[in-house]
Amino acid sequence: MKQKKTSRRQFMKNAALMAGAGTIGIERSVANIEDANLPPSVPEWMKKMGRGVVTVPYGTPSPYEDKVIRRTVPWLTASPISSISFSPLHELKGIITPSALHFERYHAGVPEINPDEHRLMIHGLCENPLIFTMADLMRFPSVSEIRFIECPANGGMEWRGAQMEALQFTHGMVSCSEWTGVKLSVLLDEVGIKPEAKWLLAEGADGAAMGRSIPIEKALDDSIVAYAQNGEMIRPEQGYPVRLVNPGWEGNTSVKWLRRLELGDQPWHLREETSKYTDLMPDGSARRFTFVQEANSVITSVCPEKPLKHKGHHELEGIAWSGRGKISHVDVTFDGGVNWQQAKLKGLVLDKALTRFSFDWDWDGSPALLQARAVDETGYVQPTLGQLREVRGVNSIYHKNAIHTWQLFESGEVRNVQID
Amino acid sequence: MKQKKTSRRQFMKNAALMAGAGTIGIERSVANIEDANLPPSVPEWMKKMGRGVVTVPYGTPSPYEDKVIRRTVPWLTASPISSISFSPLHELKGIITPSALHFERYHAGVPEINPDEHRLMIHGLCENPLIFTMADLMRFPSVSEIRFIECPANGGMEWRGAQMEALQFTHGMVSCSEWTGVKLSVLLDEVGIKPEAKWLLAEGADGAAMGRSIPIEKALDDSIVAYAQNGEMIRPEQGYPVRLVNPGWEGNTSVKWLRRLELGDQPWHLREETSKYTDLMPDGSARRFTFVQEANSVITSVCPEKPLKHKGHHELEGIAWSGRGKISHVDVTFDGGVNWQQAKLKGLVLDKALTRFSFDWDWDGSPALLQARAVDETGYVQPTLGQLREVRGVNSIYHKNAIHTWQLFESGEVRNVQID
Repeated sequence: MKQKKTSRRQFMKNAALMAGAGTIGIERSVANIEDANLPPSVPEWMKKMGRGVVTVPYGTPSPYEDKVIRRTVPWLTASPISSISFSPLHELKGIITPSALHFERYHAGVPEINPDEHRLMIHGLCENPLIFTMADLMRFPSVSEIRFIECPANGGMEWRGAQMEALQFTHGMVSCSEWTGVKLSVLLDEVGIKPEAKWLLAEGADGAAMGRSIPIEKALDDSIVAYAQNGEMIRPEQGYPVRLVNPGWEGNTSVKWLRRLELGDQPWHLREETSKYTDLMPDGSARRFTFVQEANSVITSVCPEKPLKHKGHHELEGIAWSGRGKISHVDVTFDGGVNWQQAKLKGLVLDKALTRFSFDWDWDGSPALLQARAVDETGYVQPTLGQLREVRGVNSIYHKNAIHTWQLFESGEVRNVQID
Repeated sequence: MKQKKTSRRQFMKNAALMAGAGTIGIERSVANIEDANLPPSVPEWMKKMGRGVVTVPYGTPSPYEDKVIRRTVPWLTASPISSISFSPLHELKGIITPSALHFERYHAGVPEINPDEHRLMIHGLCENPLIFTMADLMRFPSVSEIRFIECPANGGMEWRGAQMEALQFTHGMVSCSEWTGVKLSVLLDEVGIKPEAKWLLAEGADGAAMGRSIPIEKALDDSIVAYAQNGEMIRPEQGYPVRLVNPGWEGNTSVKWLRRLELGDQPWHLREETSKYTDLMPDGSARRFTFVQEANSVITSVCPEKPLKHKGHHELEGIAWSGRGKISHVDVTFDGGVNWQQAKLKGLVLDKALTRFSFDWDWDGSPALLQARAVDETGYVQPTLGQLREVRGVNSIYHKNAIHTWQLFESGEVRNVQID
């Protein structure tokens, strides 16, 4: 029997004692419980029958959770059809993003595709070009892997200065799912690629025919032609009935509504790899084909949407991810990077997946500058904003994986600020 | 460059050649593509704009997936309120069950609970009884773990003979989610349990006040007071806003809408552990408090809902799980248990989680008796139906984890049959 009072428990008590009126104390006496509408008093919902089984054959969240939704920023793009929605990271737990809350990005809206009429063609520099139905694709041996997808523009509004007063908007274009499908290497084996094939064009069946050029090495490594997400068929906005998943790479390369893969000997220089998804450098040149989403992290339990309501114990939580592999460790700082302390990695630590970290923290009520810094298994260390700007300037709207700062005030409020 | 034709590839070719009219061949030539409405022809949905971003702030599946739902069997229980819905296992991929398709079982319907008014009381044989708000619970350090939950009545209609012509009904009361919450041991440490406390009463806030007695050893081991499932707050039918999760144990003990935990020195002998959730043995005695869901498995890619449409290559797939720990291996047979071959475990193999297995199979069109047999890391081997009936008789409706048989006919149709 464990009966010792831990120091954490003492934290909680102190927190409750220190907390001002209207804040939440962690401990309540059960003495005088008759005075309140609390257990063992019986609440209203125990006095009647609830709704019956399969009243909702496909379930939905509680109506009390109706604020936990994807959101967009109207001024970000010219049209609400070709735009972005952001995942509510401040409300999410664990590492699986509910499919219903996965961020969205598309260029001509979400097509409504009849899976029986959809085809995937693989052609170009191969021996045996083929057209696959969905039933064909689903006959091949499948894999299921938990992987993040991140838009390379995640945080892109922040290159020149802090703009967005919400975690949902600063980092909400990263999500993580269990993806199921056929390894692309299996399909390429089926068509028999020619030695001169070095690149692959992936094209979507949306009105934009969104396309990207993928090096053949990636296609033969870990790319998945995926038809399921988190156990069920992919949702329309995620590419129903089939999409490419390039683990760890720019989300834009994981082409949705995949209809065509063409093998070629050079990249196609499409709109999305020339005008867009390139980094304009200070000297006027452009970085191109920078596919990997490098290590990134952010604190999620303290953020503009989640101000602190009391002093004392807090489990500081956040997420980290790297397109190069597993997260090896995460450090946190409360003084804007002067002193760092190692956070704990929680739960599953998977290759190219969101990884949750935490740090048991006792807030004394002082102002603070909170940051997290991720390191991946290749030894890559998430850079400071200054380091990133020194190399890349401020013209890009992509690949901003700099250490992020939350400024905490004595009031418990949190603001998005930048420290070089 | 991989260009060799694998034997699997040859399987596919043979399958396509062997398949009769109307069946699906895996390979199609792209010659004469102008003749068909196939790529590179442009389908209708590429010629217009799709729906805009966050038109659906909380996403939903494609309308083409509207048959992938939970289902119930009207005659199973006296009332559709106190009943069961089954998860569509034949349509699910990977190991995560979408929350919207998690099986349901409840005894007085789904209460609609306001989380701000919900409380969890912990009292009885402890030093410091406490009442927690949801905000209190969410301040404690959390854990996130992928665990299955299975109703102990899963397959219970089949003790006396095969009845249900659908995988969804024979095995659809097992699901697997990433659960997030506070370890119960942390909360028990907070209240300070007394040495004489040996059992814990868990009570739900539904109209049935559904309750179970839990040994204190389990509570101090791996039980979770969970508020999130697959990244978001638990759905109403899964216990919103908070439930108990006892990994690997009878789903019934993972009390939903958790409102009260009482520490005592003996079990409470409640309805759900006397009249129900006990096994009536051949001698008239009852097995009680048989908490662990023992190793089980079933083939999911060939089942009554998924008849075979062609000869040749198939990836035989299924799921296995054990309440004692990890699955160590799974064997499959095509002749009703005479010859066994080892299947491959796919993807993550986690403690007390669904584990997916597969076997590359070349069907020659003959009738077959398909079975899977799971072994867990403790060495426990899933029993035959005969072995289980020899020990337990046929009076129970619980804890039927026997090897399951699908009878495959030459037509490709599949029936649910029993082999002792």
